[in-house]
Order: sequence, then structure tokens, then C-alpha cells
Amino acid sequence: MKVIAISGSLRRGSLNTALLREAQALAPADVQIELGDISDIPPFNSDIEPDMPIAVTALVEQIRSADAVLIATPEYNYSIPGVLKNAIDWVSRGKPQPFAKKPIAIMGASKGVLGTARAQYHLRQVFVFLDGLVMNRPEVFVGGAGQKFDDNGTLKDAGTRDFLGQYLVAFRDWTQAARHMAA
Amino acid sequence: MKVIAISGSLRRGSLNTALLREAQALAPADVQIELGDISDIPPFNSDIEPDMPIAVTALVEQIRSADAVLIATPEYNYSIPGVLKNAIDWVSRGKPQPFAKKPIAIMGASKGVLGTARAQYHLRQVFVFLDGLVMNRPEVFVGGAGQKFDDNGTLKDAGTRDFLGQYLVAFRDWTQAARHMAA
Amino acid sequence: MKVIAISGSLRRGSLNTALLREAQALAPADVQIELGDISDIPPFNSDIEPDMPIAVTALVEQIRSADAVLIATPEYNYSIPGVLKNAIDWVSRGKPQPFAKKPIAIMGASKGVLGTARAQYHLRQVFVFLDGLVMNRPEVFVGGAGQKFDDNGTLKDAGTRDFLGQYLVAFRDWTQAARHMAA
Amino acid sequence: MKVIAISGSLRRGSLNTALLREAQALAPADVQIELGDISDIPPFNSDIEPDMPIAVTALVEQIRSADAVLIATPEYNYSIPGVLKNAIDWVSRGKPQPFAKKPIAIMGASKGVLGTARAQYHLRQVFVFLDGLVMNRPEVFVGGAGQKFDDNGTLKDAGTRDFLGQYLVAFRDWTQAARHMAA
Repeated sequence: MKVIAISGSLRRGSLNTALLREAQALAPADVQIELGDISDIPPFNSDIEPDMPIAVTALVEQIRSADAVLIATPEYNYSIPGVLKNAIDWVSRGKPQPFAKKPIAIMGASKGVLGTARAQYHLRQVFVFLDGLVMNRPEVFVGGAGQKFDDNGTLKDAGTRDFLGQYLVAFRDWTQAARHMAA
Repeated sequence: MKVIAISGSLRRGSLNTALLREAQALAPADVQIELGDISDIPPFNSDIEPDMPIAVTALVEQIRSADAVLIATPEYNYSIPGVLKNAIDWVSRGKPQPFAKKPIAIMGASKGVLGTARAQYHLRQVFVFLDGLVMNRPEVFVGGAGQKFDDNGTLKDAGTRDFLGQYLVAFRDWTQAARHMAA
Repeated sequence: MKVIAISGSLRRGSLNTALLREAQALAPADVQIELGDISDIPPFNSDIEPDMPIAVTALVEQIRSADAVLIATPEYNYSIPGVLKNAIDWVSRGKPQPFAKKPIAIMGASKGVLGTARAQYHLRQVFVFLDGLVMNRPEVFVGGAGQKFDDNGTLKDAGTRDFLGQYLVAFRDWTQAARHMAA
Repeated sequence: MKVIAISGSLRRGSLNTALLREAQALAPADVQIELGDISDIPPFNSDIEPDMPIAVTALVEQIRSADAVLIATPEYNYSIPGVLKNAIDWVSRGKPQPFAKKPIAIMGASKGVLGTARAQYHLRQVFVFLDGLVMNRPEVFVGGAGQKFDDNGTLKDAGTRDFLGQYLVAFRDWTQAARHMAA
């Protein structure tokens, strides 16, 4: 099973990118997680849509060929980061639309208490339109993440590591079951 | 009274930019609406935040010197367009934060029936964090906007024109009253 | 296939109850829709939870034995009607929780333009917690419903009738596919 | 200044009712907080709206004569408790509508981490329609509340007590400033 992972933050030391790297390491043996890259995606403008940027077509292709999508999102101003939403806006213009019937898991890490919950519920609404199959439960809200990762971006908090491992097993199972929804 | 207006779409023929141009024409005599520009704002990355792009500092300055902010937003994928959210994410890094206690009005136009309602409620949540003073009512959802504007972007629908005029009067009054909230 | 239908309004002439009656008539031949009743469910209070009211246990049983749940909700004050949310709050106390892995479809009718959209997105968030399998698309927003039903509550608008019929076919298919998610 | 306080829970040992009792004790000297009662409000049904129940008319009158409204809400199933929403649905039928231009503060306590955040944002959307003047900041999310109150419902956590006291000062100031919005 191949999963494409997308971090909603562009910064080098991003906690959410670090969370995805941990997910790569903690995934079940039959799940391979590949990191996508949204850093070169320009601002969406439908006037230039016919010339879809290479960074977009590459991501569209990765999503299309993956069995599932794993998103780790920061929360900016109580909602989805603009850079992540912009990447989704671009990808959604692919034909056929790449998120349709695709199993999706949403998680997030923040220094604050709520662990990006507000951003995650906005993302869930986005995937109603895009017809993604977002797993309901469990949910991953890594609050107080500044204390749970070390300076190298390694997740040192044992409880969070255990939970993340279980989460990925649940997501594998969700992805397998969801194949029937896409038929 | 000076209002800075922001369109959430970059495309040349945007219905929302057209709506703002109509607002400029229909505003009460004591209200001057100036169009801001988000088209040159790059993807937000806190690593480059110390070098705030000129397009951002210019918009921050416009918002700071304005009495109020008027936003016309499309709805992309049931939420705020990434390009608009990205502009807000950048602007929110201004110090002091420019939207704090600023009177704000949100409207939107779409070809569909709902007139960008879903995007507007997400935007309202953003401004809870940013402490903007968003006017509750009336709300502007210009549905079926493809029929209400002509090919030059002129709002030909009389009912919508009347409503927009009344809306701008209400927003002027909201802005005047809101001065007491900011003190 | 057996579907339990719940109207979010208690009033006799409810457009949403009328919409469910039409759904009964327009359902595919292999789908039987039964109307649930929330009118006798008292205000939720966990102090009296051990004595679950009969109206609640009856609804819990209906949901448990159904293959799927169809909800038609009004929008009260930009959200879910309190009476509908209260019924869900009670039902959610059933053990095992009856909505878990249950296929769910949400629709709504209103005299206004938005067709209860705001209430429907709040309901979708409720079912994230309850782990319901809510169909993404199509969505049913019957706006201007005052003109689409006659005084006897018959849906006379041909376009809406056609769409409702197609919607119920899609929901049957969703329900069949969703069996794999529950396993 | 007179504030009417409403708890979204009916149960005797409610953490949210306890939070309001603490607010009564911690309020600034010039603020008097009175507890409203929603426990006798029946399920809303517009068929019986002409005979508005006494429990509703009493609450409508309390809200109308108060300077501001303070709500402490639990979160049930990721949204507003049905009993609280039902009370608001009834009150909203008062003429003139009692929440219009009324200063409102929303807080909440829960045993979980998020402190009723999801319910609070749904409530904020409700008050867009009802034109309430909901304070943006600060926000009160009392997570882990099971440890912060003792068995008698006394708030023993010093940090939360301090914060609640400051919050009530901010709400008094918001209420005073908001008088200009209502004129």
C-alpha cells in the first residue's frame, strides 16, 4: 500500500513535516509513505490553469497513483494554512479530480493545546466537496508539540509514538475497506 | 471614511473583483473604497518571515491606515481560496496585527446557488482569532452571479445593486459604531 | 434494504417531514424507508440517563436494525435544530452507539435560498464523532421550498422530484458499499 | 451591569454550571451575574409557538433586561448540546428578538482536552444570525476540568480562577463598549 503524505507547512523545522517523517518510520510493514512537496506550487489563478505548473502536475500524479493520502496540517489563524489550501485548490483542477473516492487521513501538531483541531474540521469540509473518504476516527491532535519533539524533529514522546503507530494501522484498514466505496 | 477592499480571486475576469468595483461606485458619498492587491504575495513560510515581501508590507500598511476592510471572496472547494487565506496569513504577521479591532465586512459572488456561504463562515472563524469586528448582518451571498454581471463585469441586476448599496450604508454605520470597541 | 428516516422538525406541516414522505414514495424498489419519531424525546439530562425514556430506546432500536439513516433537517438559527440535536444526543448514549459505521444521508428543505446548508455541515461534524458514514455527494439543498410543495405537502416540483429519486439511488449504492467499512 | 448566565447542561453536577457559579463569585464588583434556567423549556415546535411556554417567556424577559449574556456550554457530539440549542431556538422567537445587539461571551468546560471548542464555534455561527455581539477574545476552554473542580463543584485550580477573573473584566469592558453598537 502506497500513501502520499502532504505537510501543510513550508518551513524547514515544521512540526507537521516532522510528524510525517515519524509516520514514515512507524507505519506498518505493508504501508509505504512517500512525502509530497507543495513548496513550489504558485498562487492559484484560473487564468493560468491551462498551463498547469509542473509542481502541480507532479503532485496530481503522486496522489492519483497512491492508495491513500495522509495530511499533517498546522493551524494558521483558526483555519487551514493558505499554502496548503492553495495546493489543494490547484490539485482539485486535475481531471479526473484526484481526491475523489481517495481514502484520506488528517492529523496535526501545534505548540498550543488544541493540536490544529479547527484547521482539521475546515479540511474535512473541503473533502466533502472533493468526495474524499476521510477517516472519522481516531483523530490526531498533537498539542503541546514543542515539548514532544526534540531539536532534530524526532518525536520523543512515547505516548504520541504509540498512538501514531496505532493510527496508521487504523488508516491502513480504512484504506483497504474503502476500496469498495470507490468501485 | 476609507475602506480597503480585498478580492479573494486573482483572475482577471473575477466576479468578486467586479463586485468590489461596483461597491466602489455604489458606496455612500462619505465612504471611499480602495482596492488592495494580493496577486504578488508569495506562499507563506515563516523561515522568510523576517524578510517580509513588499507586497505584504504594502497591504499591511493599507489595512492599518484604513478605517475598515471589505472582503469579496469566492468559494473554492467549500472553503476560503488558498490565495486569500495565504494573504491573510502573511498580513497577520504584521506587528501590531493589522486586523485587530478593525471593522470587517465579508461578501461573495458565485455562479452556484449558495453565493460562497461556506467560504464566508470559515472566514468569520479566522477573524475570531484575529479579533476583527465582522459585521453580522446583512450578509451578501450573490448566487447565480454569472447571470447578474455582463461580460464587462458590470452588475446589471437591479435588485443586487440596490441591496449592495444598502449593505454599504450598513457597513459605514457599523464602522462608525465600532470605533468605540477599539478604544 | 431498510432505511430509518428522521425529520428534524416537530411541526405538523413540516417541509422536511414532507420531503421524507416523498422519499418514501420515490425510493428504488429495493429500498424501504420507515419514518422515525423524535417528538416524544425529552430534554437530555445525564442524571436521568440510566432510565432511558421509551421514545429513545425505540429510536435506538430502529436505527440499530436499519441498514442506513436518512435525515431531513431544517435550519434553525444557522445550525441544527435543538430538537434534532437533542434526539441525537440521547441516541448517542445507546451502547453500542447506534450511529457507528452506519451509512447516513443528510438533506434539507427551507423557504430560504440556502436549503439548510449551514445546519447540514454542523450535522456532518457531529457524525465525525459518532463515526457515521455520511455520503459526501450528491447533496440535497431544497431552497425556496415554500413554492415547491403544495398545501398538502406534496412535492410538485419536477426537477426536485427527479433529483430526489437519483439521490436515493446513490444512497442505496453508498449503503451497499459501506458494508465493507463496518466489517 | 447585569449579566444573565446560561448553562448548556441540565445535570445537577454540571461542570459548566459550576463554572458559572465561580463566575458569579469572581466577577468584578460592578458586575452582577444571575443564573437563568433552561431545564423546563420543552422541545421547540412552531405549532405551539403562539402559546409560548412560561419557562421561555421568563428567559426571554431575563435576557431582554440584562446588559449581556454569558454562556457556559458543554460539547455533546462535537457540537452544541441539543438542550441549549433548543432553548436558543425558543428564545429567538421572542419579538423583538432578544439576542440582537446583545453582548455575549461564550465559555466551556470539559473533561477532555479541547474544552468544548467545537461547540463554541458552532454557537458563534448561531449568533451571526441572531446578531449577538460575541466577544472574540479571550476565549475560555477549560480542558481537563474533571481535575480542576472538586467534588462540590468548586474551582480549585488557581490558574483557571485567575484567568476567569480576567476574562470577566474583559467581558465587562466589551459590554460597555458594545453599547455604541446597539444604538
